[in-house]
Amino acid sequence: MVKRPMVRQFLEDAFAGESKAHMKYLIFAENAEKSGNINLAKMWRAIAHAEFTHARNHFKALGYLGTNGENLKASLDGENFEIEEMYPAYNVVSELQNEKEALRSIHFAIEAEKIHSSMYKDAIEKIEKNDDLDEKEIYICNVCGYTTEDSLPEKCPVCGAGKDNFVKF
Amino acid sequence: MVKRPMVRQFLEDAFAGESKAHMKYLIFAENAEKSGNINLAKMWRAIAHAEFTHARNHFKALGYLGTNGENLKASLDGENFEIEEMYPAYNVVSELQNEKEALRSIHFAIEAEKIHSSMYKDAIEKIEKNDDLDEKEIYICNVCGYTTEDSLPEKCPVCGAGKDNFVKF
Ligand SMILES: [Fe+2]
Ligand SMILES: [Fe+2]
Ligand SMILES: [Fe+2]
Ligand SMILES: [Fe+2]
Ligand SMILES: [Fe+2]
Ligand SMILES: [Fe+2]
Repeated sequence: MVKRPMVRQFLEDAFAGESKAHMKYLIFAENAEKSGNINLAKMWRAIAHAEFTHARNHFKALGYLGTNGENLKASLDGENFEIEEMYPAYNVVSELQNEKEALRSIHFAIEAEKIHSSMYKDAIEKIEKNDDLDEKEIYICNVCGYTTEDSLPEKCPVCGAGKDNFVKF
Repeated sequence: MVKRPMVRQFLEDAFAGESKAHMKYLIFAENAEKSGNINLAKMWRAIAHAEFTHARNHFKALGYLGTNGENLKASLDGENFEIEEMYPAYNVVSELQNEKEALRSIHFAIEAEKIHSSMYKDAIEKIEKNDDLDEKEIYICNVCGYTTEDSLPEKCPVCGAGKDNFVKF
């Protein structure tokens, strides 16, 4: 594990940079698929995977990959930070400045993060008793990220998108 | 598009936060698959997709999603920043402090980014003349991110991993 603070800070920044590059390429790939540019999309998806390996190497060098239980705890802490600190602060400033598109984007995120927090909390309890979670389907709204383990809803309770917009895992 | 500078800064930070959460969950999912925890891995992959939709909404609200040509230009600029500015600076400090694990992780990234830069440069030229790229296979080393459009190599020229470690796109 990397010890020196300056190099640790650089690896943190590189992890953020690789994660953002990976995300941009996935967004660009999806957009290229929509315009029918299949080979261009494939190039973006392939390079996105290369950026995944870079982010993973930096993350491991920082000593951040733990056991499944530790990784669940890290996931829960991240969601709770977003729900309790980050998004409420961003939201109140977006209200002050009446930035409607930001308010929409922040609202979608915070509603999903609340569900994620509760899923990770449940998973921590289950993983303490059993090796794995029970097998069940998970549905994600492809517009707003609304997440449900129940049945596929007729329409998304957060953004109103129809059931065709859900991705099943 | 969001206009006010403070809200734009917050959305930039939220895009980074969602991209990092998405990346962590993919890393945690891969790790859970390795330990045989298939349902736990599925939960992380599903929630990662929700974070993808959040990052995409913030990115669009910032006005960053362009045409395929503009998105290629943005991809090229990002790779060139990493090659010319970011990784050389991180590398020289890692050498100074003899942080071997960081040197390895940075070396893997910079070798792949050079290839990505040249792929994006070629793609910009091709997309100006034709709608899409030619159909061809792309192989990514799952250890270091080495990227090639030629045939599958016997072993990775950057990290030495065998051909079983390559992912084909
Ligand atoms: Fe990279
Ligand atoms: Fe979340
Ligand atoms: Fe939705
Ligand atoms: Fe999110
Ligand atoms: Fe790259
Ligand atoms: Fe490699």
